[in-house]
Amino acid sequence: MAGTGITTDLVGRSLIGENDVVGTGGSAFRAVDPMSGEAIGPDYDECGPDDVVRATTLAATAFAAYRRTTPDERAAFLETIADEIEARGDAIAARVMAETGLPAPRVAAETARTTGQLRMFAATLREGSWLQARIDRGDAGRTPLPKPDVRQRSVPLGPVAVFGASNFPLAFSVAGGDAASALAAGAPVVVKAHPSHPGTSELVGRAIRAAVQKQGLPEGTFSVLQGAGHELGAALVTDPRIKAVGFTGSRRGGLALVVSAQQRAVPIPVYAEMSSVNPVFVLPGALAERGSELGAAFVASVTGSAGQLCTKPGLVFLMDGPGADDFVAAAGRALGAVSAAAMLSPGIAEAFGTATRATASSDGVRRVAEGVPVEAIACSGVPVLFETDGAAFLARPGLQGEMFGPASLVVRVGDDDELARIIDVLEGQLTATVHGSPRDRELAADLVERLELLAGRVLYGGWPTGVEVGHAMVHGGPFPATSAPATTSVGMRAIERFLRPVAYQDVPEELLPAELRDDNPRHVFRRVDGLPEI
Amino acid sequence: MAGTGITTDLVGRSLIGENDVVGTGGSAFRAVDPMSGEAIGPDYDECGPDDVVRATTLAATAFAAYRRTTPDERAAFLETIADEIEARGDAIAARVMAETGLPAPRVAAETARTTGQLRMFAATLREGSWLQARIDRGDAGRTPLPKPDVRQRSVPLGPVAVFGASNFPLAFSVAGGDAASALAAGAPVVVKAHPSHPGTSELVGRAIRAAVQKQGLPEGTFSVLQGAGHELGAALVTDPRIKAVGFTGSRRGGLALVVSAQQRAVPIPVYAEMSSVNPVFVLPGALAERGSELGAAFVASVTGSAGQLCTKPGLVFLMDGPGADDFVAAAGRALGAVSAAAMLSPGIAEAFGTATRATASSDGVRRVAEGVPVEAIACSGVPVLFETDGAAFLARPGLQGEMFGPASLVVRVGDDDELARIIDVLEGQLTATVHGSPRDRELAADLVERLELLAGRVLYGGWPTGVEVGHAMVHGGPFPATSAPATTSVGMRAIERFLRPVAYQDVPEELLPAELRDDNPRHVFRRVDGLPEI
Repeated sequence: MAGTGITTDLVGRSLIGENDVVGTGGSAFRAVDPMSGEAIGPDYDECGPDDVVRATTLAATAFAAYRRTTPDERAAFLETIADEIEARGDAIAARVMAETGLPAPRVAAETARTTGQLRMFAATLREGSWLQARIDRGDAGRTPLPKPDVRQRSVPLGPVAVFGASNFPLAFSVAGGDAASALAAGAPVVVKAHPSHPGTSELVGRAIRAAVQKQGLPEGTFSVLQGAGHELGAALVTDPRIKAVGFTGSRRGGLALVVSAQQRAVPIPVYAEMSSVNPVFVLPGALAERGSELGAAFVASVTGSAGQLCTKPGLVFLMDGPGADDFVAAAGRALGAVSAAAMLSPGIAEAFGTATRATASSDGVRRVAEGVPVEAIACSGVPVLFETDGAAFLARPGLQGEMFGPASLVVRVGDDDELARIIDVLEGQLTATVHGSPRDRELAADLVERLELLAGRVLYGGWPTGVEVGHAMVHGGPFPATSAPATTSVGMRAIERFLRPVAYQDVPEELLPAELRDDNPRHVFRRVDGLPEI
Repeated sequence: MAGTGITTDLVGRSLIGENDVVGTGGSAFRAVDPMSGEAIGPDYDECGPDDVVRATTLAATAFAAYRRTTPDERAAFLETIADEIEARGDAIAARVMAETGLPAPRVAAETARTTGQLRMFAATLREGSWLQARIDRGDAGRTPLPKPDVRQRSVPLGPVAVFGASNFPLAFSVAGGDAASALAAGAPVVVKAHPSHPGTSELVGRAIRAAVQKQGLPEGTFSVLQGAGHELGAALVTDPRIKAVGFTGSRRGGLALVVSAQQRAVPIPVYAEMSSVNPVFVLPGALAERGSELGAAFVASVTGSAGQLCTKPGLVFLMDGPGADDFVAAAGRALGAVSAAAMLSPGIAEAFGTATRATASSDGVRRVAEGVPVEAIACSGVPVLFETDGAAFLARPGLQGEMFGPASLVVRVGDDDELARIIDVLEGQLTATVHGSPRDRELAADLVERLELLAGRVLYGGWPTGVEVGHAMVHGGPFPATSAPATTSVGMRAIERFLRPVAYQDVPEELLPAELRDDNPRHVFRRVDGLPEI
């Protein structure tokens, strides 16, 4: 890129601190362009155990200095990362498209989301309430025992391992929400890049490395390891220098990491966002009022990004009655007109085929419609919509399994009792959505109350795809949606996953962290004796 | 108790909802008076699997209604529990002393702490910031996509299992911090009483049942199961209706529950507070200035409550030099004058003997002093103080094992480098304490920074025993001090363990929980677009 001094040529290396490293794992792999099905260069050498130790040792060394940076310094660092990503924007976008088949508008939106959330974490760092600063004033005269002065703030856990996600090569990968929130917390990050987009990971990794250098931070603050095998991830999670793990991916992959982390001499938390079918409930009034309209809108949510979103609605429950046929007919028409799109990788395309064939062959399931095949795309997913009824759904627990891709299952529900029985058997979810009308008021109120126990986010109207990055967002939910239901991986509270509270008892002013000193030099939000400080 | 209408006769039953139940586990046990070593009645029949199902089924049923109570209603319930405990105060105190051998002043203090924290949780419930209410305002005009209205609050996880602790028959048992914080969160509680104080558990359980009835709450809001075997605890933790676990006790017991909980079809969090030796660091200036005084004060902290506190200082590191001999001599003199006290149970007395004999027989360890045996007490622990040096400590990892009881180990540290190496090998702790003087400033600053990564609470001066219940307290810490280092089991943030955030997207005003409605009818603290609401 002439004039910017930025090189965006890929060299096919892992980035360990300041060094470009040829992985020592003994094998190599390439990305695959899902449009053509062809491998694209350069080669990436798989990292081995020695590379893991090198990166985590650098991270542990960096932690001592990095955690002492001020929130302002870390905010500037995050903003510089965003700038460096934008400076490489064209090269990153081109490589994302080549490696994932995602279309340009989606890549642009995901880039904006990635840089936007880095900058939002910067603002949050400066505001300071994430520190959870609290002061309980002492009372030397209390009887029978003096009351100590106790102050609390949060400290980072230590180096964090982040696993890049296949379906968000930017927003949930090298500089995605897990990395941004860990870096914000004061934790160095070692990323295991997702093997389906190594080039994107290298480019974004270089952007972060440039920011590390510009801000004068220790080199071990950030590393990216390339690899396609499971051994690398297991070695990273079981490395004693790693203190927490962020993961977005499959249920099998997430649970394997959880088990590895629990078997360590010192277990660590794994924040795995895994599996969700995001049920949608369309109530009688809404169906009667706008069944067709909802059916068409539903299909747009199912097929966007080729259905490869954690929040894709994979189950829709229609209360049988007026408008239900209209919903199904409109959904079928809409889906029948959607062309197959590239899927992220050959493996995902194959798994999608397996999952949809299993649903298609289930007793009591009917195929409503199928989209338009596109021969020119090597790894494509043809959209498909299935239908069944409540009794069949209740009889076949397998029908609530995730079909990752542009597919969904409509379930016609006979009555409120059957609906209640269905909700009782649903697994934990990232989202649950209700469509109602004023005449559904009573049932809607009941549903919202039930669904808040099932999901991390409850929507009324609209569709669950599209997760707004903010202060109130929860992208999480009960198992198996996540392995840590009390947390969120999107939004500002994601930082809490990498922090731990510490109390300081009777520690003199000059030995206290700045944000706990009487005069509050960093002007952070604090609670004094339980109430907001005036 | 004439005139109060309160019966404090023990009937030897488990309390399952409204019913006094004879456990169906097939065996029976009695408490033991540690002063006499004699069993004291009545018999308690061990609960079996059927009793667990009965209690958890009632709890699950109660949850639907109990979680809908307002924070004000739950606050009144907690206050009523405190009142009911006080109304039975004399009977409870007498039984605690008989079952545990704890002296009257300690029992009075623990009773006050138990009722005090119930009332503090009530005040916290009314203030409302525990709900973590947040509103991100929507913007229908945003491009390219409208911004949704997203609101967040916390909901309870569901029924909680609480394990009574041997060493705090009141403050960490049936109505202790785990139960109080779970009930505050809106979670029904099933307590497994500790088998060393079944009568105390029955009396306190009756106090809570009376409060349930007075407040018109569902009977399944609270149950107490009696039992002495491990099967009962395992059955409770693996019951699918239980959604979280609070435990205070041994490392072995805590880890067993963690494993059981992780192997469930739907894993649940176990908040286990397990094992800590609470290192104390006495710096050169402090030793030179007041070595003798510190040595004597240290012994008071080691031997109070017969050393049976999670925060007892089990290791004290003296920087060798002027005053170190004075510290050891004064500590030896003080400890040599302390009489053996009753230990909580025959099992604990036996384990204490085993642990101290292991330390005594370690190479490089010298016994500094021993307290005064008291033949009249059947289960007693004779205080004992050991001494070693840094090199021996580093060579023998077993020396940082917990000796639960009135014993501690003094370690003479050669220099700052040796101190740094020692800190590197210390396990996670509930507390770490520094004693310094103005001339220790540099070393103290460095230590406080290191220790905040090792412990949940860092003290400067004073002693770690005595945990102030407040808003800023952290009674937690890295593994193996706890199984959940980001949480506290004492203080108001303990409630967070039993909550989970939920986001509500575009949910209309009339379907929102009250605390998220625009007009904030409950006047709870909220953040709007990330900042405190004006």
